[in-house]
Parts: sequence; C-alpha cells; structure tokens
Amino acid sequence: MLLRHCLAAAITLAAALPAAIQAADDTPAHTPSPKELLAKSAAQEWRTPDPQNLLVMKLPQGQVLIELAPDFTPLHVANIRTLVREHYFDGLAIVRVQDNFVTQWADPEDDDNGDKSKLRPLGSAKAKLPPEYTRAIDARLPFTRLPDGDVYAPEVGFSEGFPVARDKASGQEWLTHCYGMVGVARDVDPQTGSGSSLYAVIGQAPRGLDRNLAIAGRVLQGMEYLSALPRGTGALGFYEKPEQRVTINAVQLASALPADQRPKIEVLRTESATFAALIEAKRNRRDDFYRNPAGKIDLCSINIPVREAKAQP
Amino acid sequence: MLLRHCLAAAITLAAALPAAIQAADDTPAHTPSPKELLAKSAAQEWRTPDPQNLLVMKLPQGQVLIELAPDFTPLHVANIRTLVREHYFDGLAIVRVQDNFVTQWADPEDDDNGDKSKLRPLGSAKAKLPPEYTRAIDARLPFTRLPDGDVYAPEVGFSEGFPVARDKASGQEWLTHCYGMVGVARDVDPQTGSGSSLYAVIGQAPRGLDRNLAIAGRVLQGMEYLSALPRGTGALGFYEKPEQRVTINAVQLASALPADQRPKIEVLRTESATFAALIEAKRNRRDDFYRNPAGKIDLCSINIPVREAKAQP
Repeated sequence: MLLRHCLAAAITLAAALPAAIQAADDTPAHTPSPKELLAKSAAQEWRTPDPQNLLVMKLPQGQVLIELAPDFTPLHVANIRTLVREHYFDGLAIVRVQDNFVTQWADPEDDDNGDKSKLRPLGSAKAKLPPEYTRAIDARLPFTRLPDGDVYAPEVGFSEGFPVARDKASGQEWLTHCYGMVGVARDVDPQTGSGSSLYAVIGQAPRGLDRNLAIAGRVLQGMEYLSALPRGTGALGFYEKPEQRVTINAVQLASALPADQRPKIEVLRTESATFAALIEAKRNRRDDFYRNPAGKIDLCSINIPVREAKAQP
Repeated sequence: MLLRHCLAAAITLAAALPAAIQAADDTPAHTPSPKELLAKSAAQEWRTPDPQNLLVMKLPQGQVLIELAPDFTPLHVANIRTLVREHYFDGLAIVRVQDNFVTQWADPEDDDNGDKSKLRPLGSAKAKLPPEYTRAIDARLPFTRLPDGDVYAPEVGFSEGFPVARDKASGQEWLTHCYGMVGVARDVDPQTGSGSSLYAVIGQAPRGLDRNLAIAGRVLQGMEYLSALPRGTGALGFYEKPEQRVTINAVQLASALPADQRPKIEVLRTESATFAALIEAKRNRRDDFYRNPAGKIDLCSINIPVREAKAQP
C-alpha cells in the first residue's frame, strides 16, 4: 500500500475488518488480508527448516538466515556446507553491492587488486564443480504450479519453499533468480563455481541469469541487511576501497549450533492451502484501497511467510 | 554478471572484443555488449529531458533526478510542479523505506503521531485530484511494443521513455510500477492523492499496484540514494523515530535553475534502434559467460540508458 500516512495503513490492515464488508456498489467483499489468512493457518502448514540446510550469517548489521536447496544444487550445497563447517566465510566480506541487482560476498583477495598469496584456502572443499544450473524434473519433488504464466519459462511455481521454473520439453527444472535467491558466483568458465563466492538478488528479478548460474538457496530472514547496504562505485558495483566492505563475522550451519541457539523459525509450506490463499488474495486483491485487482501475479512477487516458532509446551 | 572477481568482469565487458568471435562449437557469435551498442548510437537517438519535466531532488546522500510524465498523469504532474515551485518539499523528509517495495517521502507531520497543526500548507496546489490511474490510448503517443509477453497486461512496451502497459479491450494505457517509477501516495479514498507524498519503487516490480495509483514519473539518476537507505522498522516500513528520517534539502524543477546549473543529461530514446538493439542483446545475451540466452525479457528488467550530455561545441 502506498498510503499517505500510518493511520490509513492501520485502517486498511486491520485484521478486525469484517471479511464480507460491503462498501460502494462497485466494491464487493474484501479479500482477506495476509494477517487474517495467516491467523487461520494450521500448525501443520508450517515447517521447520532442516538445520543442515540453514545457514546463519552474522553481519555487523544483523543476522541473515539462508535456506539451502540440496535437491536442486546438491554438489554446490555440499561444498558450501563444507566451507561453512571449516569456517571459510568467517572474517571474509561483502565485496560488491550493485544497485537493483546483487549483493555478493567473497574472499576480498580474490580480486584484481588482491594478493593471491593471501587467498584463504578452500580446505576440504572443492575448487570447481559441475554447473548445476538445471536438474531433471522429478515427480518426487513437489511442484505447486502458478497458473498466471511467466515471461521466461513455460511453467513456474514453487517446490520445497523455492520459486522454480520448468520446461517439460527439455525435461528440466531450475530455481529462479527472484528477490532473495542466493546464487553461486563463478568465473567465465562454467566449471569455476565452488560456493566460495555467493550473491543474493536485491532488485528486480534478473531472470536472464536463470540456467546460467547455480542457485544454492534463498534468504529466509534478514534480507534488509543485504539490500540496504551502500552501492559499490566500482565496475559492477564492487567496493573500491577495502574499508567500504562489510565484514562477515561468521557463517554457521544451524545444525552446528547448540539446540538452544538455533534460529527458531518456521516457514509456510508452499504446498499448503494457506499459501495458495495468500497468493489468490494478492492476485485479486480488493479492499478499500485496491479497487482494480491485477488478476494475475508474477512468480517473483510472491512472498513466502516466515514466523518465529512457537515455544514448545 | 555474477563474476567471482573484477578481472573476469573486465574480460567479459571488454568493448574491444571482436563482435564475431567464435568460441566452442555450441557458442555462436557474441551478442554485442551494452557498451559497444551505446558507442555506436547516433546523437539523434538521445533526448534531453524537458527541464519543465525534470525534478532535481537534493538529499544529503546525493542528487536524485526524476522525469515527470505529463502525458500520463497531467493533473498530478501539474500539481507536483506547483508544489515544487513553492518549495513545498524543501525540508520535508523520507519517512518510509519498506524493503523490496518502496521509499516514500512526505510531510512527517502527516502521520498518526504528527501534529496536524504543523502540517505544511499545500499553497496554490490542490489537495485532491481525480485518480489518473490509466488514460485513453492515444495514437499520437509513441508505443514501442515488447513482443515478449507480460504476466499482468495484454500489451507492454515503452512510451516517451516510460514503461507502459495497455489493454485495447478497455482502450486504456498506464504507466507500470517498475523499478524506479515514482508514484503518488494517497489515502484510502482514490481522490486523496495530490503529489505531496511520493514513492519510488525500490524492489521487485509491485505490478499489483498498477491501475490503483497514479504514477507521476521515473527516476533517471540517483536511485541508489533512495534504494540503499535503512529500512524502516515500523508498520509498512515507516521510520519509527524522527531522527531516522532523511531530510530532503530541496526539490527543484530544472527549469527554475540557471541554465548552467541544470543537470546535463541525455536519455536514450525508447523509440530508437539502439534501444531495440540493447533489449535484443539482453533478451538473447550470449557471450563467454552467458551460455543459455533467456530468449525473453521482462518489461521491468530493461534499463533505459542515461548519459552525461556532451559539452556544446
């Protein structure tokens, strides 16, 4: 909503609004608000991310949680887990923020002006991996199709909490470069991605990257710590001065943390009825503020809700 | 590009690459780079924005240039010009930054907690305007259609430097909420937009807003000063504390500035052959890095080039 002030926001967002309120004659029933829909969701519609797939990235600004996607990029995810277990990222930095595109983190010495003798070793991790840009469609993976169409792919939808595209003609499916997706940077050679340099999409979905890079996961929480950083002024948004970089305090797997220190979050299942209802309410949103429902929705404009897990009884 | 470091970027971006280089057998000729295409553009493919349509917004972080769209939202543009001429925005503030959505500026007193007695008067400007959310299709306005399709509208393309959608069935066309578009905030009543509170799109295109709000223009330069601000922690991303707001030093019309102080910029015409070539090169980008051209391109993922104007001889 683009409301002039908060009061109007409070009115429009109010979960207490009767769902069937009738306003002017051209305004039928309100679509339910996200808050209303989430309040009615069932416990089993939420999942706790596997701690083996949950990265906790600690920045000076705050904590970023990234869910890995081993069913889509298994070799890259395994390599990233190895790097993380061996504390590869701790003390490295965000080296690049290109407006309306990506925030990227890496070893700062892995740069034109870097001192290659100071490059942090990859330890047990592999330096090169095959390009896992797409994978074979597998009926064992869930696929919740969006009927709205897509500019870039024959079919799009969600699988295991990730936005995906697929093409039955080629038999392939792939994760899409929507906001918050975390990809694997590489050199020109497609074999040069290892996961030692990652990027998060911070702008309009750069879907032209789909099928050209491996996507390893998605930011579940803390995107604002990656998206609100000053843009780099060098080529492609690289920071030109070392002091502009943001140091990564640590990246850890949730599974490596003591149970009481693991993030306590739940993610709405993308196969759930509540997720479908949220999409429909956004697709055809109609309330006192929205008078002309879009009728359609773009894959990358759909948010996947995350909430704090309720304390165990 | 998501390159691991700058060197590879330099290689891939190099304007000196032969256009017809042949690499592996599955890699045909490189698509030309934006730099190559722009270098070959003709002078008449560039336009100087009308200084009557060019807002110069001075923030502590830097200068933001906004081009107004009088052919799409004439009443709102006229009202904004009036507000700007009477220095309405000078000393007001950015009051809201919602991640992946919008940055909004307004009178800070125009808020729940504001002191209405301190509201800045609108002067000669109108307080309410009819909703200019769409306009009748007019053959006198250029329309460069994108053949790629669109999730939200029957047809999309560009007109006078702005991304637009249109629907021949309804006979209407409208500006679309792509990255950098500047819209008019309003209260719940569609008649309450005046231009005294504006927002810029800073994330994935919120196209569901199309036809529900008036769009007054587009940011030509300085988006990074709006997109990289800290996100507000209040409801809808409003800043909760006055000291978090960014004060607007001044908003001026370029036409009100002495000629030698006007921004010296040129915008590539969206009807030009070079613009079409840039779109095609991005749609089917193929070079050493991009091996799988998308084949399609989304309206909101197309950048409209802006350059410093060459000095007059």
